[in-house]
Order: sequence, then structure tokens, then C-alpha cells
Amino acid sequence: MKRIGIIVAYDGTRYNGWQIQPNGTTIQGILNETLSDLLEEPIEVMGASRTDAGVHALGNVAVFDTNSRMPGEKISYALNQRLPEDIRIQLSEEVEPDFHPRYCDSEKTYVYRILNRHFPVPTERLYSYFYHYKLDVSKMREAASYVIGQHDFASFCGAGAQVKSTIRTITALTVDRDNDMVTIRVSGTGFLYNMVRILAGTLIEIGNEQYPPERMKEILDACSREAAGPTAPAHGLTLVGISYD
Amino acid sequence: MKRIGIIVAYDGTRYNGWQIQPNGTTIQGILNETLSDLLEEPIEVMGASRTDAGVHALGNVAVFDTNSRMPGEKISYALNQRLPEDIRIQLSEEVEPDFHPRYCDSEKTYVYRILNRHFPVPTERLYSYFYHYKLDVSKMREAASYVIGQHDFASFCGAGAQVKSTIRTITALTVDRDNDMVTIRVSGTGFLYNMVRILAGTLIEIGNEQYPPERMKEILDACSREAAGPTAPAHGLTLVGISYD
Repeated sequence: MKRIGIIVAYDGTRYNGWQIQPNGTTIQGILNETLSDLLEEPIEVMGASRTDAGVHALGNVAVFDTNSRMPGEKISYALNQRLPEDIRIQLSEEVEPDFHPRYCDSEKTYVYRILNRHFPVPTERLYSYFYHYKLDVSKMREAASYVIGQHDFASFCGAGAQVKSTIRTITALTVDRDNDMVTIRVSGTGFLYNMVRILAGTLIEIGNEQYPPERMKEILDACSREAAGPTAPAHGLTLVGISYD
Repeated sequence: MKRIGIIVAYDGTRYNGWQIQPNGTTIQGILNETLSDLLEEPIEVMGASRTDAGVHALGNVAVFDTNSRMPGEKISYALNQRLPEDIRIQLSEEVEPDFHPRYCDSEKTYVYRILNRHFPVPTERLYSYFYHYKLDVSKMREAASYVIGQHDFASFCGAGAQVKSTIRTITALTVDRDNDMVTIRVSGTGFLYNMVRILAGTLIEIGNEQYPPERMKEILDACSREAAGPTAPAHGLTLVGISYD
């Protein structure tokens, strides 16, 4: 028995998220099926990030245990031959038997992309959120500065989450504009349910000057979901990668 | 009666190209139907570029004549409300009654995107051609230098085209790499059938060092489709825009 780690990229458009569910197709479900078929034994993958329906990934991380004699680094090739084209393994390798991608110290990086222009662009519609009203990126940056560091992010925790503590650490949060595309890039050691999407929704309200940048501090202090902005749509969000110590 | 010009962006993935056909859904077909419905009279659009099945556009240009009293610049808004989300009008305005987007002097710009890395990235798969083998962009640039200017492009003309002359002028051709994405950008006053895709296929062979850059000159001189490389896949190609004098 050995443990294999994989880095998984996917287009979340047609999936019901990462985690296996009674209804709907999920990334985890497809990986379990395809790996079980390939390695001829029942395989269950454990993922680092259980991304929501519609969220994309360039580098989610997962592990599974296998008795197969196929070398770890060969599994990516064999798996990519069998997976649908909206899921692609970027790397596979043998890892320590006790490595669990969710319970080891790590830093995750997400990107939230906002297409900010007069009319939508069809070729960008699947991987960015179209927002018509002009966003002031300098105001979004100022607001972002209040979020960096360790805080109680209760205001940025989606309903239905069951967590012991809502304290999390954001290590970096940048906002940049490249022509019409505004990109929010956020890294942290842990995220609450919907946290990045609520941060994005709140930064959009501030960029649109509905609230001043200082409002971000008040929202954090309020420790109430009602204080923050709306949850930005899933399809604008991409899990870029996860780094482990 | 007035003539309206529109700038049209589309994701070509699910279309049988621009031009109306007996079978399959086309951009022109959808525009005719939607405009006829909106303006309550039979409308036929004439497009500048009859892009192939699977090719995308940020700015194709088309015109149509209408008796409607709807102001030209309002049509874009009304049309975007009714179009499928993979087609979006970027601008509409009244133009001179004799303006025809195909027969006026113009310069078209296309981009061909190649994702050049070890494994595919699902979120890039619809708008770029995945190419595994390493491309040497400096060699592609050297080859591109032979193509700029006025030449007989018979070697870069797809089968089935009926044209009087295969002489065309390329005004600019650049090749750039941004991480894993290699972008060929080409502008010219006119293009033959499949010309950009055959140029891309040939540049890829040179970037992969199957042929030296000087080979591009021999290919031009041969004036034979067989001399050039393969036609690169449609989904890597985007018509960026068309400028008129």
C-alpha cells in the first residue's frame, strides 16, 4: 500500500463542486471512478479544498491509497487518458503515508476575476464575473489592506458552515487591473465557507463606491455575515494552488 | 431605411461558423433571427469575416438595413437582452448606406493562442490549442519575419477556396510567450481561406525545430499548399478586430 498525491486542474462549469454527493456529477466522484477503473481496485481520493459548484482549479491537491504497482509519476499520464477534458492531472507522485492534504499546514491561493466593462465578452464568460459598473481598483486595494493578517472573519463566513473558530490568517491580498480584467488574488493558511467569494463581493461594492474603503474594518469588527457584501458568483473563482511546508 | 453597423463578439465553440448554412447553428443565422424578431421585419446581416466553425471573435463587424425607428446605438442593448450568452454585441451605430464591411478597405487582426506545457489546463482548453512539445519562440519570430509584407500566399490557402489572386499583405506578425501561453498575432489587409491557421501550423513546426526558420521563405516561394505545415485547430483562433480607414 502506498499513498499517491495528485495536483488536479479542472473547469468547474459543469460540476456540482468537488465533494461527492448523492445527486450531480462531482470532481471527486469522477476521480474515484476513473482511478478505480484504472488501478482495478476501489479508490477514494481525499481533497485539500472542497471547491463549490462552478468554482475552477488550476491546482487542487488530493491523495489516495493504492496497492497498484504503477509508479506514482506515471499515474498522471494514464489518468489523463481516461478523464474528461475538463479535468486534468498536473502531477502525480508517491507521498508520505501520513500526508493528508487537508490537515497539513498549507497556504492556499485563490484568484477572483471580474470583467469590468460596458458589455460582456463571450470568451471570458465562463471564467470571470461580468460587472458593468466602473470599479475603482485603488479603493479596492485600500479596503484589502484591512483584511491582511489574522482576524475573526465571521462576517465573511457563509451560512451553513460548522466551524469551531472563525479566526483565519490572510497572508496576501492584491487587486490589479489589466485592461478590463480586475483580478483579486488572495492567499491564506485557511478559508471559511464562501470566504473568498464574500470578500470579492464586498470589495466589488467598495470598488463601486457604495461604501468607503474604511468600511472593510467595520465589517470585520461586526463579526456578522449581514455586515459584509454579497457572495460573488462561483464562476469568477479559481483555486490557483496550494503550497505545503 | 438606414444601415446599422454592429461589432460582434462570440465564443465559436458551439457554432458551425459565421455563415448561414442548411445544417447547424451559425452566428449569422442567430443574428438574423434575433434581429428580425426584435425589429419586427426580415433582417439579413452581412459580415466582414466569415469565420470557420469553432473560431472565436472579439470584434467581427456586420451591417444590416432596417426601417425600424430604434436609434442605432440602442440596438446593441436590446439585442444583447435576446442573444444567447455566447454572442454579445459590443457596439451598434448608424453607418453610411453604402458601407459594406467586406468590400471596404480594412485591416483585420487575428490572434492564435497555443498553450505550450506538459499537461493541458482545462480552463484554457476552449480558447487555445494545447501543444505538448517545447516551442522556441525566437525561431518562430525569425520565421515570421519572412511573412510580413506583400507575398503570394498560395502555400497558405486552404483547399476549396475560389479566389482570383492569392497575393495578400501582412502588415504585422508577432510571436510572444507569457508563461505557458504562446500568442501569434497577425494583422493584414486580407486573408485567404484558413490562412492564419496554416501560418500557425507552420510556425508551430518551426518552433518545434522540425524545420529551420528559413524554411518559411521556401514555403512562400513554393506557392503550393503541400509545402506548408498543417492547418492548426480552429479553437485556438480569435478574430480580435477589424479597423476601417
